[in-house]
Amino acid sequence: MGTVYRGVAASDGKAVGKAWVLGSSAPSVTREEGRDPEREWARVEQAIATAKAELEALRQATLEKLGEAEAQLFVAHAQMLEDPELADQIRQLLSAERVNAEWAVKCVIDAMAGLFDALDDEYMRQRAADIRDVGGRLIRQLQGGAGASVADVAEPVVLVAHDLAPSDTVQLDPTRVLAFVTDVGGRTSHTAIMARSLGIPAVVGLGDITARVEAGQVLAVDGSEGVVQVAPDEAELARFRADALRQREERTRLEALRTAESVTPDGRKVEIAGNIGMPGEAAQVLAQGGEGIGLFRSEFLYMNRGEAPSEEEQFEAYRQVAEAMDGRPVIVRTLDVGGDKGIPYLGLPHEENPFLGYRAIRVCLDQRELFAAQLRAILRASHYGKLRVMFPMIATVEEVRAAKRALEEAKQALRREGTPFDEGIEVGIMIEVPAAAVIADRLAQEVDFFSIGTNDLVQYTLACDRLNERIRHLYQPLNPSVLRLVKMVIDGAHAHGKWVGMCGELAGDPRATAILLGLGLDEFSMSAGSILRVRDVVRKTRYEDAKSLARRALEADTEADVLKLVEI
Amino acid sequence: MGTVYRGVAASDGKAVGKAWVLGSSAPSVTREEGRDPEREWARVEQAIATAKAELEALRQATLEKLGEAEAQLFVAHAQMLEDPELADQIRQLLSAERVNAEWAVKCVIDAMAGLFDALDDEYMRQRAADIRDVGGRLIRQLQGGAGASVADVAEPVVLVAHDLAPSDTVQLDPTRVLAFVTDVGGRTSHTAIMARSLGIPAVVGLGDITARVEAGQVLAVDGSEGVVQVAPDEAELARFRADALRQREERTRLEALRTAESVTPDGRKVEIAGNIGMPGEAAQVLAQGGEGIGLFRSEFLYMNRGEAPSEEEQFEAYRQVAEAMDGRPVIVRTLDVGGDKGIPYLGLPHEENPFLGYRAIRVCLDQRELFAAQLRAILRASHYGKLRVMFPMIATVEEVRAAKRALEEAKQALRREGTPFDEGIEVGIMIEVPAAAVIADRLAQEVDFFSIGTNDLVQYTLACDRLNERIRHLYQPLNPSVLRLVKMVIDGAHAHGKWVGMCGELAGDPRATAILLGLGLDEFSMSAGSILRVRDVVRKTRYEDAKSLARRALEADTEADVLKLVEI
Repeated sequence: MGTVYRGVAASDGKAVGKAWVLGSSAPSVTREEGRDPEREWARVEQAIATAKAELEALRQATLEKLGEAEAQLFVAHAQMLEDPELADQIRQLLSAERVNAEWAVKCVIDAMAGLFDALDDEYMRQRAADIRDVGGRLIRQLQGGAGASVADVAEPVVLVAHDLAPSDTVQLDPTRVLAFVTDVGGRTSHTAIMARSLGIPAVVGLGDITARVEAGQVLAVDGSEGVVQVAPDEAELARFRADALRQREERTRLEALRTAESVTPDGRKVEIAGNIGMPGEAAQVLAQGGEGIGLFRSEFLYMNRGEAPSEEEQFEAYRQVAEAMDGRPVIVRTLDVGGDKGIPYLGLPHEENPFLGYRAIRVCLDQRELFAAQLRAILRASHYGKLRVMFPMIATVEEVRAAKRALEEAKQALRREGTPFDEGIEVGIMIEVPAAAVIADRLAQEVDFFSIGTNDLVQYTLACDRLNERIRHLYQPLNPSVLRLVKMVIDGAHAHGKWVGMCGELAGDPRATAILLGLGLDEFSMSAGSILRVRDVVRKTRYEDAKSLARRALEADTEADVLKLVEI
Repeated sequence: MGTVYRGVAASDGKAVGKAWVLGSSAPSVTREEGRDPEREWARVEQAIATAKAELEALRQATLEKLGEAEAQLFVAHAQMLEDPELADQIRQLLSAERVNAEWAVKCVIDAMAGLFDALDDEYMRQRAADIRDVGGRLIRQLQGGAGASVADVAEPVVLVAHDLAPSDTVQLDPTRVLAFVTDVGGRTSHTAIMARSLGIPAVVGLGDITARVEAGQVLAVDGSEGVVQVAPDEAELARFRADALRQREERTRLEALRTAESVTPDGRKVEIAGNIGMPGEAAQVLAQGGEGIGLFRSEFLYMNRGEAPSEEEQFEAYRQVAEAMDGRPVIVRTLDVGGDKGIPYLGLPHEENPFLGYRAIRVCLDQRELFAAQLRAILRASHYGKLRVMFPMIATVEEVRAAKRALEEAKQALRREGTPFDEGIEVGIMIEVPAAAVIADRLAQEVDFFSIGTNDLVQYTLACDRLNERIRHLYQPLNPSVLRLVKMVIDGAHAHGKWVGMCGELAGDPRATAILLGLGLDEFSMSAGSILRVRDVVRKTRYEDAKSLARRALEADTEADVLKLVEI
C-alpha cells in the first residue's frame, strides 16, 4: 500500500504521474585538484555561452507567453554572466589552486552571494538568490546539463519541490506539469495562487516531501483533499483513476457553462470575473468564461527588477489587458507593496509587524511620483478598453480623498496635454481593513464601487497572520464576524447606490457562494480555475434561499456552525 | 531663548529641574598596563562585595515597595556576581596581561554577554543585558562609585535617558524624579505607561535628546504638550512656572474629588477604576480615588526571570491586591504574552507579525499546566477579596468556551481538595480583536462582563502597528470605526444584561470620556494618574448630552471630525 502524506489542499483536481524532484538551486559539487587552469577556464567559457543561450530562449518564451515585465528576470540573469568580476575571480581561483571548474564556480558564487546575504536587506537577499540561481545554472552546464530545473521538465510529471519562487513559476509549462507538491506554503501562498490560476492540482505545506519522494516514483495527488499518495498499489490506483475520471466528467459538464449567464433560477444576476497578476493571464480568464477582470494585481510589474517600471511600460501592460478583455471591465489595483511583498528599490523600512505597517496606499500617498506615473499609465490605457482604478488598504476617509486628489491631478495633466482617457472611469477601493468595513456607509459616498479583499480582512479581523502556521485554526474566512463585516460593506454601499465585488480567496470558494449571494454581493472575482464552479453554484441557488441562508449564517456562533449550514 | 524639542506627550504635567542624564549601562573604561595582579584582584573582590550589598539593599527596598516578583531581578543579579567562572576569568586576565581591574572586568563581561547575544534568542539577549547591567555596576564601583544609574538619583531632577527598561523603573524613586524625557518610545510604550501610573510628567520619542542635553542644564518639561525646553531664559521660565502653578491648582481642585461618586448631574453612575502591573500599585489607585482595579496585568509576574512563577507565588501576589483593595473589585487578566512582550522560558517562536501571532489566550490554551497554575492561584486568592478573572485576545466563541472549561476544571480540583474560593467569581473577556467586537452579542452569552482593550483594538481595526512611527497618523483611537465597534460591544452586552468596561488608553483620555459615557460604557479603567480628571468630566457631563454627542460621533467621517466635536 502506498504511503499517504497530508498537506494543505492548495488547488483542486487529481493527477497521477511520476515524481520530478526539483533539487535545490545549488547542485552538489566536489573539489578536485591538479587540473589544468586553461582547460578548466575553457570549460567555464563554454558553460557561460550555453547558459546565456538558455536564458535567451527562456526570455523569448516568457515574452511571448507572459510579457515584457516577466521576461526581464532573464535579462538580469544574463547580465550577471557577463560580469567581468565573476570571470576574473573564477580564473584566479583556477590558476591559484588548480581546482576543477565546478568547484571554482561554486566558491566564487558562494562568496558573492554571501556578501549580499550578509547585508540583511530584502533587496540584497533577492540579489543573493539570483546569483545562486545563475551559479546553479552554470554548474549544471559544467556537469553536462544534468540536475533538475523547472524549465528542464520534458514530459508530463508531478513536480516535487521545497517551494516554487515566482521565477520558477514563470517557467512552468502547464502542459508538462500534472500537479505540484511542495514542502512549505499555505492556501494563500504564491505557489498555491499560481497553481489555481494555472488550473493545476497542488498540495502544499507537506513538511519534507522532497526528502521522502524519489525521482520517478509514482505519485497520486489529490489537490482537493490535500493528500499525496506515494507509490500506490494497483487497487488504489484504480480507485484514484476512477475518481479522477468522475472529476474530469464534472469538469466537462462545467465547461458547458463558459458562455452561460451568472444568474440564479429566480433571476438575480451577478458578475463573475477573474483575478490576474500578469497581462498574459487575461487569456486564461476568458478561456474559463470570466466576464471581466475583478483584480489586476499591478505589483507584479514592479517586482524582480532594480527600479520602478516606466509610465510607458505600465501603459503597455494595462492596455494589453484592456484590449485582451475587449470591452469587458478590468479593475486595476494600484501598487500594493509592503506586508509580505517587498520591493527593494522603494527602500521600505524593516518593520516588526509588516502586515500592520507601511504598505499599499500608505506608501503611494508618500511616494507621489511613483503613484502619479501609475495613475497616468492607467488613465491613458483606459482609452483602449473599460478600465477601472482601485486603491488598496484604505483605512480612513482621508486616504480615499487624498488618493482621489492624486487621480484628479493626473487627469488634469492629461487633459492639458490633450492625451485621451476615459472621462467616465470608475474609481473604487479595496475593503480589507476592518475600519473600512465598519464605516463603509461613509466611504460609499466617496467612490463608485468596493471590492472586498478577504485575505487581509480575515487576518486583521481575527488578528491572525495568514502565513503563521501556529495559529492556522484562527484564520477563518467564514467566521460570523467576517460575514457580518461583509454585510456591513454591502449594505453601506447599496444604501448609496454603489456596487460591491469581492476579490479575496473567499470569492472563489464554492462553499461560500450561496452565502455571499444572499448577502447581496454583486461581483465575484477569483482565480480563473474557480470561475465555472462558482457560476454553477449561482445557477443552482435560488436568491431567496440564499438570503435566508445568509441570515442564519450571520446569527451563527462559530465558523464551524457556518460550515455545517453550507455542507448540508 | 532656550531650545525647544518636540516629542510624544506621554504623561501629563509640567516640571522644571536640572537634567540628570542617564549614561549607557557600560561606563567608559581605558586599558592600563603594568598593574600588580594581586592588588587589582583585591580591588575586584572589594567591588563585588560592595555591589552585592547594593543589590541586597535594592532587593529589600523593592520587596517592600513592590513585592516579591519585582525583587527577584536583584537576586538574579547578585547570583551572577557569585559565579566562579566570572571570578576565574577576571583573575586569569589580570595575571596574563597585568591590566587594570576595570579593563579586565570589561573584557570578561563583554565576552560573556557577546556569547549570549550571538545566540539570537530573546531570552539570551535578556541574559546578555543582565550581564552588562551587572558589569556596569561593578565597573562603577571600581571607578569609585561614579557614573549615573537610576537608583543613584539623589535630588529632585529631570531624568534624561535613551529608554527606561522595566528594571530601571522598578528602582525609580518618584519623589526624586520631577519628570522624564527619553529618546525612544510612544504613548503606549512601557515607559509612558509607567510615567502615567507614577503621575510623573514625561515626554518620550524625542530622537536624540540624550545627546543634546548636558547634565545639570535646566529643562522645562511639558508632558501634556510633549515639549521639552532646554535652558529656558528668565521670561520663559516665569511663564512656564505660572502655567505649572495653574496646573497644580487644578490638581488640588481635582483632589477634592477623590471620595466623590462617579456620577453625571442627571444621575448616570459609572465605575472608575485603575490599571496596575504590580501588586504594589494598588495603593496608588486607592490614593487617587479608584473604585477598583479594572485591569491587573499579570504578565509582569512572569517577566525578568528564568522560569514561570509558582502557583504559590502568584497566589500571594493576587491575594495581596485583593486584600489591599478591601472588597473593591479587582479584575485579574490571565497571562497576556507574545506580541511585543516576550517571555523567554515559554519558548515562543520567532514570528513575522507577532501582533497577529501566537499570543495571550492562544498560548495559554496550548500550555495547559501554565494556565491551570494561574487559574488555581486566582481562584484561591478570590477567597480574600473580590476578584474577577478575564481572558485576553479572545477572537472566537470556541476560545471562550475552552478557557471557561479550563477554569471549571481548576474549580473542581479546588473543590475536591476543600480549598476555599469565591464560587460566584465573575468571568469576563477582553474585547480587543475586531472579530470579538463584531460578534459581541454572541460572546455576551458566554461571560459576565467585557473589558474593551482599545490599544490592540485600534491597531487591528486600522491595521496599524501602534509602535510603528511611520504610520503613527493612522493610529486613531477616536476614529468613527473604533467608536462604532465600541457601540457594538456595549449594545451586544447590554442586550444580554452584561456590563462593559474599558481598560485601554482611551478610557483614561478625558477627550473621550463624554463619548464613551454616551455610548453606555459602565466602567472606565485607567492609569491611576488619570482617574480624577475623568471623574471630573463625568461629574460635569449630562448623560443625555453625552448620548447625543455619541450619536454625532458615530456619524462622523473621520477622527478629525470627532475631535472637533469634543474640542468645542
